[in-house]
Amino acid sequence: MTAIKTITLIGAGNVATHLGKAFLNQGFNINEVYSKSLENAVLLASKLNASACDKIEQLNSGSDAYLICIKDDFIVSIADLLPFKHKLIAHTSGSIGLDVLNQFENYGIFYPLQTFSKEVEVDIAEVPFCIEGANNETESMLMELGNSLSKSVYKINSEQRKKIHLAAVFACNFSNYMYTVSEDILSENDIDFDILKPLILETAKKIQDNTASSMQTGPAKRNDEAVIKNHIEMLADSKDYQDIYKIITNNIIKRN
Amino acid sequence: MTAIKTITLIGAGNVATHLGKAFLNQGFNINEVYSKSLENAVLLASKLNASACDKIEQLNSGSDAYLICIKDDFIVSIADLLPFKHKLIAHTSGSIGLDVLNQFENYGIFYPLQTFSKEVEVDIAEVPFCIEGANNETESMLMELGNSLSKSVYKINSEQRKKIHLAAVFACNFSNYMYTVSEDILSENDIDFDILKPLILETAKKIQDNTASSMQTGPAKRNDEAVIKNHIEMLADSKDYQDIYKIITNNIIKRN
Repeated sequence: MTAIKTITLIGAGNVATHLGKAFLNQGFNINEVYSKSLENAVLLASKLNASACDKIEQLNSGSDAYLICIKDDFIVSIADLLPFKHKLIAHTSGSIGLDVLNQFENYGIFYPLQTFSKEVEVDIAEVPFCIEGANNETESMLMELGNSLSKSVYKINSEQRKKIHLAAVFACNFSNYMYTVSEDILSENDIDFDILKPLILETAKKIQDNTASSMQTGPAKRNDEAVIKNHIEMLADSKDYQDIYKIITNNIIKRN
Repeated sequence: MTAIKTITLIGAGNVATHLGKAFLNQGFNINEVYSKSLENAVLLASKLNASACDKIEQLNSGSDAYLICIKDDFIVSIADLLPFKHKLIAHTSGSIGLDVLNQFENYGIFYPLQTFSKEVEVDIAEVPFCIEGANNETESMLMELGNSLSKSVYKINSEQRKKIHLAAVFACNFSNYMYTVSEDILSENDIDFDILKPLILETAKKIQDNTASSMQTGPAKRNDEAVIKNHIEMLADSKDYQDIYKIITNNIIKRN
């Protein structure tokens, strides 16, 4: 195999969009974009100077690499339908194993550890990529592909990648839910969420050069029982928020 | 009353340290630093060209304003011991009411909405301040004091401030705990926490220009049952983390 120059994106969602733009910026050729919705395939393909396709069986076989960027649940069934088995193929999921692609000759993982939204630009150079290949040559080619986009490319096996994905759910999805709860509390009291934004950013910045456990502050860290009791009373209208408050507070206190 | 020029800090912890340095940078005079530990009082006072004091009854009466920067639980008892009642006095707590200072003539709140650690520099200009005064003149003077340090100074009453403090516990303390859990999961699997740092920073950046609820991603948002089930199994060794995972996941699913 020679180095990857031409890429087909299987999927037209957030991951495909951000990766596609980044590849294009780095001089790669996006050959084709597949989506089960022709509209979505055309929409992304038009941005990437690529052709669009909504029938996986009719996919063009002229690319060097095929990247599967669709929802986890559909990776196996899409892979089954791919009409050629000898091309380099990789999926971009944090939680799906390598072996779901083992009907192919050269397969691997190309997992960008970042949260992608359509509205928000991301600097791909700062995104860590987790790479795994079923054989050395595939792994080298995917490492090279990652290095062409990002400063942080890691060789990570499937077991480690699943742990990283789990950790990312806490670090990203669950911290975002904490922001959502705070947004709710403020909006119920007619206070602008803007007032909390510097604090949120600072909290994330602090752990860039320190361990998270050493940066813990707040009433639970101080075991400030009066404040904790008061907060739980203030959440009387929402059993859900009260339960979250109690369980996390108790966890922090246990570690003190 | 004339504008505040000379300040006494009651307390020598993180809040006193960061505020003291910021005042000094803005040309204020720090007259005296009180701490029940003379060592701590001297340590901070020496950085601020101030004198140190460990007996509240002997506090110098020559300052324009006295800022109480101590743990919530001790604010009332320290205030009781203050030997003069006619000076401008304010506390810096998010969760303690204004009325705990009502034995004074001119009292108020000067609450910086930020997480302060000794190790981490903070740009005070970006810190929102929540101000409340028992009378108009005190409120104006505290607003002016806030404006001399920060771009974001809000007039906030005690009820609102308590809600903001509660919201901040979710946005800051609890999101930091989510980082801690992820740090734990990675360290148990010999994976460097560095791999998650760009994701954590991006998650906090995304909500600077978007609502938190609209930025939610992850398996719970997609209601991806297979991944959720797998994550819960992976957390079998920690009932605590499993419980946190379940409760937050269920909350996110409910909002879908």
